[in-house]
Amino acid sequence: MYIKIDFNSDEALYLQLRNQIIIGIATSQYQEGDTLPSVRQLADTIGINMHTVNKAYSVLRQEGFVKVDRRRGAVIAIDIDKLQAMEELKKDMQVLLAKSRCKRISREEVHALIDEIYQNYDGNGGMK
Amino acid sequence: MYIKIDFNSDEALYLQLRNQIIIGIATSQYQEGDTLPSVRQLADTIGINMHTVNKAYSVLRQEGFVKVDRRRGAVIAIDIDKLQAMEELKKDMQVLLAKSRCKRISREEVHALIDEIYQNYDGNGGMK
Repeated sequence: MYIKIDFNSDEALYLQLRNQIIIGIATSQYQEGDTLPSVRQLADTIGINMHTVNKAYSVLRQEGFVKVDRRRGAVIAIDIDKLQAMEELKKDMQVLLAKSRCKRISREEVHALIDEIYQNYDGNGGMK
Repeated sequence: MYIKIDFNSDEALYLQLRNQIIIGIATSQYQEGDTLPSVRQLADTIGINMHTVNKAYSVLRQEGFVKVDRRRGAVIAIDIDKLQAMEELKKDMQVLLAKSRCKRISREEVHALIDEIYQNYDGNGGMK
Protein backbone atom coordinates (compact mmCIF):
# COMPACT_ATOMS: atom_id res chain seq x y z
CA MET A 1 0.00 0.00 0.00
CA TYR A 2 1.15 3.45 -0.85
CA ILE A 3 1.13 5.70 2.22
CA LYS A 4 1.18 9.41 1.51
CA ILE A 5 2.22 11.62 4.42
CA ASP A 6 2.11 15.40 4.14
CA PHE A 7 4.84 16.77 6.40
CA ASN A 8 3.57 20.33 5.85
CA SER A 9 0.03 19.52 7.03
CA ASP A 10 -1.34 20.74 10.36
CA GLU A 11 -2.76 17.26 10.91
CA ALA A 12 -0.79 15.08 13.31
CA LEU A 13 1.34 12.45 11.51
CA TYR A 14 -0.19 9.53 13.44
CA LEU A 15 -3.67 10.68 12.38
CA GLN A 16 -2.63 10.98 8.75
CA LEU A 17 -1.26 7.45 8.94
CA ARG A 18 -4.41 6.14 10.64
CA ASN A 19 -6.61 7.85 8.03
CA GLN A 20 -4.61 6.45 5.11
CA ILE A 21 -4.88 2.93 6.49
CA ILE A 22 -8.64 3.27 7.01
CA ILE A 23 -9.03 4.56 3.44
CA GLY A 24 -6.84 1.63 2.33
CA ILE A 25 -9.24 -0.82 4.00
CA ALA A 26 -12.32 0.92 2.56
CA THR A 27 -10.85 0.70 -0.95
CA SER A 28 -9.75 -2.94 -0.45
CA GLN A 29 -6.06 -2.21 -0.73
CA TYR A 30 -5.97 -3.86 2.67
CA GLN A 31 -8.22 -6.83 3.34
CA GLU A 32 -9.34 -8.58 6.50
CA GLY A 33 -6.46 -10.76 7.69
CA ASP A 34 -3.72 -8.81 5.90
CA THR A 35 -0.64 -8.04 7.94
CA LEU A 36 0.44 -4.42 8.21
CA PRO A 37 4.17 -3.67 7.93
CA SER A 38 6.04 -3.86 11.22
CA VAL A 39 6.34 -0.62 13.17
CA ARG A 40 10.06 -0.35 12.42
CA GLN A 41 9.61 -1.15 8.73
CA LEU A 42 6.84 1.42 8.20
CA ALA A 43 8.70 4.06 10.21
CA ASP A 44 11.79 3.51 8.04
CA THR A 45 9.84 3.52 4.77
CA ILE A 46 7.95 6.75 5.49
CA GLY A 47 10.79 8.37 7.39
CA ILE A 48 8.88 8.99 10.62
CA ASN A 49 9.43 8.09 14.25
CA MET A 50 8.54 4.58 15.45
CA HIS A 51 6.41 6.14 18.22
CA THR A 52 4.23 7.77 15.56
CA VAL A 53 3.57 4.46 13.82
CA ASN A 54 2.93 2.82 17.18
CA LYS A 55 0.38 5.49 18.07
CA ALA A 56 -1.42 5.09 14.73
CA TYR A 57 -1.58 1.29 15.16
CA SER A 58 -2.76 1.68 18.73
CA VAL A 59 -5.59 4.03 17.68
CA LEU A 60 -6.57 1.63 14.88
CA ARG A 61 -6.72 -1.17 17.43
CA GLN A 62 -8.89 0.88 19.80
CA GLU A 63 -11.21 1.77 16.93
CA GLY A 64 -11.61 -1.85 15.89
CA PHE A 65 -9.71 -1.93 12.60
CA VAL A 66 -6.65 -3.88 13.65
CA LYS A 67 -5.73 -6.67 16.03
CA VAL A 68 -2.27 -7.28 17.34
CA ASP A 69 -1.11 -10.83 16.87
CA ARG A 70 1.87 -11.89 18.97
CA ARG A 71 3.62 -13.48 16.02
CA ARG A 72 2.28 -11.64 12.96
CA GLY A 73 2.10 -8.14 14.43
CA ALA A 74 -0.70 -5.77 13.38
CA VAL A 75 -3.35 -7.56 11.34
CA ILE A 76 -6.44 -6.03 9.72
CA ALA A 77 -9.42 -7.25 11.74
CA ILE A 78 -12.58 -5.24 11.57
CA ASP A 79 -14.75 -5.28 14.61
CA ILE A 80 -18.20 -4.53 13.23
CA ASP A 81 -20.12 -3.03 16.10
CA LYS A 82 -22.54 -1.24 13.81
CA LEU A 83 -24.51 0.44 16.57
CA GLN A 84 -21.39 1.99 18.03
CA ALA A 85 -20.11 2.88 14.57
CA MET A 86 -23.39 4.68 13.82
CA GLU A 87 -23.17 6.57 17.13
CA GLU A 88 -19.63 7.73 16.34
CA LEU A 89 -20.52 8.64 12.76
CA LYS A 90 -23.44 10.71 14.00
CA LYS A 91 -21.27 12.61 16.46
CA ASP A 92 -18.54 13.30 13.90
CA MET A 93 -21.05 14.14 11.19
CA GLN A 94 -22.83 16.67 13.43
CA VAL A 95 -19.62 18.66 13.83
CA LEU A 96 -18.73 18.37 10.15
CA LEU A 97 -22.18 19.52 9.01
CA ALA A 98 -22.26 22.35 11.57
CA LYS A 99 -18.95 23.53 10.16
CA SER A 100 -20.23 23.25 6.58
CA ARG A 101 -23.42 25.06 7.47
CA CYS A 102 -21.51 28.01 8.92
CA LYS A 103 -19.53 28.14 5.68
CA ARG A 104 -22.74 28.16 3.63
CA ILE A 105 -22.37 24.68 2.11
CA SER A 106 -25.88 23.42 1.36
CA ARG A 107 -27.44 20.10 2.24
CA GLU A 108 -27.59 19.28 -1.47
CA GLU A 109 -23.88 19.95 -1.88
CA VAL A 110 -23.15 17.58 1.01
CA HIS A 111 -25.29 14.81 -0.53
CA ALA A 112 -23.56 15.30 -3.89
CA LEU A 113 -20.14 15.15 -2.24
CA ILE A 114 -21.03 11.88 -0.54
CA ASP A 115 -22.11 10.32 -3.83
CA GLU A 116 -18.88 11.51 -5.43
CA ILE A 117 -16.75 9.94 -2.69
CA TYR A 118 -18.71 6.66 -2.77
CA GLN A 119 -18.37 6.55 -6.56
CA ASN A 120 -14.60 6.77 -6.18
CA TYR A 121 -14.60 3.94 -3.64
CA ASP A 122 -16.83 1.76 -5.81
CA GLY A 123 -14.81 2.62 -8.91
CA ASN A 124 -11.65 1.41 -7.21
CA GLY A 125 -13.17 -1.99 -6.67
CA GLY A 126 -13.57 -1.28 -2.97
CA MET A 127 -15.68 -3.18 -0.46
CA LYS A 128 -19.31 -3.29 -1.50
CA MET B 1 -24.99 29.32 25.39
CA TYR B 2 -24.94 26.02 27.16
CA ILE B 3 -21.58 24.31 26.78
CA LYS B 4 -21.53 20.61 27.53
CA ILE B 5 -18.11 19.10 28.21
CA ASP B 6 -17.70 15.36 28.73
CA PHE B 7 -14.73 14.89 31.06
CA ASN B 8 -14.83 11.12 30.48
CA SER B 9 -14.53 11.43 26.71
CA ASP B 10 -11.36 10.50 24.82
CA GLU B 11 -11.77 13.69 22.81
CA ALA B 12 -9.50 16.56 23.85
CA LEU B 13 -11.32 19.22 25.90
CA TYR B 14 -10.32 22.06 23.56
CA LEU B 15 -11.79 20.13 20.62
CA GLN B 16 -15.03 19.48 22.49
CA LEU B 17 -15.25 23.19 23.24
CA ARG B 18 -14.47 24.14 19.63
CA ASN B 19 -17.09 21.66 18.36
CA GLN B 20 -19.77 22.96 20.72
CA ILE B 21 -19.17 26.53 19.63
CA ILE B 22 -19.33 25.57 15.94
CA ILE B 23 -22.59 23.70 16.56
CA GLY B 24 -23.79 26.78 18.48
CA ILE B 25 -23.12 28.95 15.43
CA ALA B 26 -24.78 26.48 13.05
CA THR B 27 -27.90 26.44 15.23
CA SER B 28 -27.88 30.24 15.61
CA GLN B 29 -27.30 30.19 19.36
CA TYR B 30 -24.32 32.33 18.41
CA GLN B 31 -24.69 34.87 15.64
CA GLU B 32 -22.21 36.85 13.59
CA GLY B 33 -20.92 39.70 15.77
CA ASP B 34 -21.74 38.05 19.11
CA THR B 35 -19.03 38.18 21.74
CA LEU B 36 -17.87 34.92 23.26
CA PRO B 37 -17.27 34.84 27.02
CA SER B 38 -13.78 35.88 28.06
CA VAL B 39 -11.23 33.09 28.39
CA ARG B 40 -11.18 33.42 32.17
CA GLN B 41 -14.96 33.52 32.47
CA LEU B 42 -15.52 30.43 30.30
CA ALA B 43 -12.71 28.54 32.04
CA ASP B 44 -14.31 29.31 35.42
CA THR B 45 -17.84 28.42 34.27
CA ILE B 46 -16.90 25.06 32.77
CA GLY B 47 -14.20 24.30 35.30
CA ILE B 48 -11.35 23.86 32.85
CA ASN B 49 -7.94 25.39 32.42
CA MET B 50 -7.62 28.81 30.76
CA HIS B 51 -5.07 27.34 28.34
CA THR B 52 -7.73 24.94 27.08
CA VAL B 53 -10.18 27.74 26.34
CA ASN B 54 -7.39 29.74 24.72
CA LYS B 55 -6.51 26.81 22.48
CA ALA B 56 -10.15 26.36 21.42
CA TYR B 57 -10.51 30.08 20.60
CA SER B 58 -7.23 30.04 18.72
CA VAL B 59 -8.32 27.06 16.59
CA LEU B 60 -11.67 28.76 15.91
CA ARG B 61 -9.78 31.86 14.78
CA GLN B 62 -7.54 29.82 12.46
CA GLU B 63 -10.58 28.08 11.00
CA GLY B 64 -12.34 31.35 10.31
CA PHE B 65 -15.16 31.28 12.88
CA VAL B 66 -13.92 33.90 15.30
CA LYS B 67 -11.98 37.15 15.21
CA VAL B 68 -10.16 38.58 18.18
CA ASP B 69 -11.05 42.19 18.85
CA ARG B 70 -8.66 44.09 21.10
CA ARG B 71 -11.46 45.52 23.21
CA ARG B 72 -14.30 43.00 22.90
CA GLY B 73 -12.28 39.80 22.93
CA ALA B 74 -13.38 36.80 20.80
CA VAL B 75 -16.21 37.73 18.43
CA ILE B 76 -18.07 35.42 16.06
CA ALA B 77 -16.95 36.36 12.56
CA ILE B 78 -17.33 33.79 9.85
CA ASP B 79 -14.83 33.88 7.06
CA ILE B 80 -16.68 32.29 4.16
CA ASP B 81 -14.03 30.90 1.88
CA LYS B 82 -16.35 28.37 0.33
CA LEU B 83 -13.77 26.78 -1.93
CA GLN B 84 -11.47 26.09 0.99
CA ALA B 85 -14.39 24.93 3.14
CA MET B 86 -15.42 22.45 0.42
CA GLU B 87 -11.83 21.17 0.17
CA GLU B 88 -11.68 20.60 3.94
CA LEU B 89 -15.12 19.00 4.02
CA LYS B 90 -14.11 16.62 1.23
CA LYS B 91 -10.96 15.58 3.06
CA ASP B 92 -12.76 15.01 6.37
CA MET B 93 -15.70 13.31 4.70
CA GLN B 94 -13.42 10.88 2.86
CA VAL B 95 -12.02 9.60 6.16
CA LEU B 96 -15.44 9.49 7.80
CA LEU B 97 -17.00 7.56 4.91
CA ALA B 98 -14.03 5.18 4.68
CA LYS B 99 -14.50 4.44 8.38
CA SER B 100 -18.25 3.92 7.90
CA ARG B 101 -17.70 1.71 4.89
CA CYS B 102 -15.36 -0.57 6.84
CA LYS B 103 -18.06 -0.82 9.52
CA ARG B 104 -20.67 -1.75 6.89
CA ILE B 105 -22.70 1.46 7.07
CA SER B 106 -24.34 1.92 3.68
CA ARG B 107 -24.43 4.98 1.46
CA GLU B 108 -28.19 5.18 2.04
CA GLU B 109 -27.72 5.17 5.80
CA VAL B 110 -25.26 8.04 5.48
CA HIS B 111 -27.67 10.09 3.35
CA ALA B 112 -30.48 9.43 5.85
CA LEU B 113 -28.25 10.48 8.76
CA ILE B 114 -27.39 13.75 7.01
CA ASP B 115 -31.07 14.56 6.48
CA GLU B 116 -31.75 13.77 10.13
CA ILE B 117 -29.00 16.12 11.34
CA TYR B 118 -30.07 18.91 8.97
CA GLN B 119 -33.66 18.51 10.13
CA ASN B 120 -32.53 19.07 13.70
CA TYR B 121 -30.61 22.19 12.70
CA ASP B 122 -33.55 23.56 10.70
CA GLY B 123 -35.99 22.67 13.48
CA ASN B 124 -33.92 24.64 15.97
CA GLY B 125 -34.32 27.76 13.87
CA GLY B 126 -30.71 27.51 12.75
CA MET B 127 -29.08 29.36 9.89
CA LYS B 128 -30.77 28.61 6.59
